Amino acid sequence: MNVNNHIQATIITIGDELLIGQTIDTNSAWMASSLNKIGINIKRRVAIGDDWDAIWRTLEDEGQHVQIILITGGLGPTSDDITKPLLCKFFGGALVTNQGALDNVVDIFTNKLKRPLLERNLKQAEVPDNCTVIQNKRGTAPGMWFEKNEVIYVSMPGVPHEMKGMMDDFIIPALLKKFNVRPVEHRTLLTAGIGESFLAEKLTDFESELPENIKLAYLPNYGMVRLRLTNLHPTNNANVIDEYFHILQSKVQEFMVVNDDLTMQEVIAKKLLESNTTLAVAESCTGGYISQLITQMAGSSQYFLGSVVSYSNEMKQYALQVPNETINQFGAVSTQTVEAMAEGVRKLSKADFGLATSGVMGPGGGSEEKPIGFVCVGFSSKQKTISTSFQFRFDRRRNIELTAISALDFLRKNMG
Amino acid sequence: MNVNNHIQATIITIGDELLIGQTIDTNSAWMASSLNKIGINIKRRVAIGDDWDAIWRTLEDEGQHVQIILITGGLGPTSDDITKPLLCKFFGGALVTNQGALDNVVDIFTNKLKRPLLERNLKQAEVPDNCTVIQNKRGTAPGMWFEKNEVIYVSMPGVPHEMKGMMDDFIIPALLKKFNVRPVEHRTLLTAGIGESFLAEKLTDFESELPENIKLAYLPNYGMVRLRLTNLHPTNNANVIDEYFHILQSKVQEFMVVNDDLTMQEVIAKKLLESNTTLAVAESCTGGYISQLITQMAGSSQYFLGSVVSYSNEMKQYALQVPNETINQFGAVSTQTVEAMAEGVRKLSKADFGLATSGVMGPGGGSEEKPIGFVCVGFSSKQKTISTSFQFRFDRRRNIELTAISALDFLRKNMG
Repeated sequence: MNVNNHIQATIITIGDELLIGQTIDTNSAWMASSLNKIGINIKRRVAIGDDWDAIWRTLEDEGQHVQIILITGGLGPTSDDITKPLLCKFFGGALVTNQGALDNVVDIFTNKLKRPLLERNLKQAEVPDNCTVIQNKRGTAPGMWFEKNEVIYVSMPGVPHEMKGMMDDFIIPALLKKFNVRPVEHRTLLTAGIGESFLAEKLTDFESELPENIKLAYLPNYGMVRLRLTNLHPTNNANVIDEYFHILQSKVQEFMVVNDDLTMQEVIAKKLLESNTTLAVAESCTGGYISQLITQMAGSSQYFLGSVVSYSNEMKQYALQVPNETINQFGAVSTQTVEAMAEGVRKLSKADFGLATSGVMGPGGGSEEKPIGFVCVGFSSKQKTISTSFQFRFDRRRNIELTAISALDFLRKNMG
Repeated sequence: MNVNNHIQATIITIGDELLIGQTIDTNSAWMASSLNKIGINIKRRVAIGDDWDAIWRTLEDEGQHVQIILITGGLGPTSDDITKPLLCKFFGGALVTNQGALDNVVDIFTNKLKRPLLERNLKQAEVPDNCTVIQNKRGTAPGMWFEKNEVIYVSMPGVPHEMKGMMDDFIIPALLKKFNVRPVEHRTLLTAGIGESFLAEKLTDFESELPENIKLAYLPNYGMVRLRLTNLHPTNNANVIDEYFHILQSKVQEFMVVNDDLTMQEVIAKKLLESNTTLAVAESCTGGYISQLITQMAGSSQYFLGSVVSYSNEMKQYALQVPNETINQFGAVSTQTVEAMAEGVRKLSKADFGLATSGVMGPGGGSEEKPIGFVCVGFSSKQKTISTSFQFRFDRRRNIELTAISALDFLRKNMG
């Protein structure tokens, strides 16, 4: 991905909380994806603390290697934030109050939060006088756009939805205009049920025959592998990448979930919407994880009716009508029980499809017959009720994630 | 946090997927937290692609500034992984097959995966001859420990549970032995329902009176703010930090959830276990998010009986016995409906406590009377059934997270 001569960027995230493990940095991945879509490559991502020397050194170093530096964090209202004074000195400006930013702060406290305005909140409207101010429609801290030695530096707040608003509304359009970048082309497909190394083995010849400007990337995640073809110089021939993408699809056909850059839950949502059908879920071992994957998507109430998280056997019996004898005879983790659960939740909710999970997620609870990582998944429609089982070998968190994805894939294959 | 003279480390993560936004880097936060607990400070975190020059430059640069460099990623079986040959050259070694690593690869493929062993899998057992090999109990790629110019470089696979196993079993014990580090002392408390800037205002005087070696950090996350006191030189006086922590607790008492470094769901789990009581949840707008927060914790089946995710009104009526008239008269998002939901799930599951959520998460569905971000939360026990409401102002994802935390806090306050 790094061999081309496109515009390159560094992402710098500032905040002690990133260095003590308090916060997982989700901003960087989002920004990287956002820049990548318009053909700007990320060269490095650097996280540093609220530390004057570390910030200064990083700005200087990265300015030697890239044309764009995006900075998030360090603009909050607490006293340990030193980023704004530093930026002011680094770019040789003086702090002045920006009227637009001030109006915004006053509006948020007076009309939205309905809280008294503190001195430190007012200070958020101060900006260096040599930057272009980016107004913050979702919060109090404005963004700042600087240029120095032909490098662009943009400073944004670390709050994800505030940063995203500024990126979408101002920064991405401004970068497109500034650099007149020619976006790289991507073609992405999603596979499930096959490991990265087996895919790589299957694709050795394909990969070696790719032209210089087309690259194949393996992007494994939770029991799925995303395969992404990138054309670094798309103007050469607009059809080239489609031809190779066609070959790639035929090589991995039996494992392909979709020939698009979608998540498993997006694929399910699309199929349900297109067929005008509905889903309900009975979750034992996944404990609500599948439901929240689905309901994170806006508009999911159109096809998702709900779920029963049946952690106790009583919930399986009373809410899902799983016969007591089934649980007693075969156990809570059995193909018989998940089939009854899938059918039970389908009938309870009046959904077209019922999906159910039950398994041993660990760290405790394993047995010789049903070890940790043993999972049953059930599917029920008006036409049929069937089940399957898996054996994972990971820790609790990952076993839950893998079960969720495998269950959704089982649904996808059976919903018709 | 960066003013002391403790051992400092850099975390380097390698992989193109980190630069195109495919993967959120959760490893770094975990490693940072793990090192921080034994008194090693993280100075920088750097993410770079599978790019020879970028990796080489980063190893050289960081080696100038810290004593420990932890590296994850770049050791997978696909052909674009160049990290191992680079490390071999950087440290001046030659690749040799390690017998322990080879035995491990053969065992995993033969006995666990039951798949044929590929040439590229065998290559995973090759390591530079000048490193200490760290065996991988959870996967095929071994870790490597190098020392050069009094700097320690440790390379680990990027798969989270493999990396964590190596850190816990080998690297942390080895670093403790090597540096004889004196862990810094932390005292952490959790607050909810108050913003960072209001807390900072309350604590201005307290913070200014702290001695040089005691630092206060604000760690905001999902409607909660964690306050962490750190004693950088704990031997000076063992009781000093406890005295200041006592004062801090009294200053934020009304907003304090717990005077310990626990998550909200851990606090709830502890209270349920200690009082030998059980919980069931009825989730509408949170769509399973609360349930999966609870069930991610091992042992949660002891106190969590299950939940009903009632996305459709039918699920509210049939599974939770919410009267049709209540929904028609007051709406699905109303204090009346959440109270009926909380009571319904409590009775269905025979739990001691029922908790329920209903709200408008966005981006669609808002009205003048019930705008996006309007949320009702209900609680029910044998003694009482009550409710409250909130108005959030964020995007869907964050509204769900904030609702979950606010609901759990409402439970905590009412469960007695």
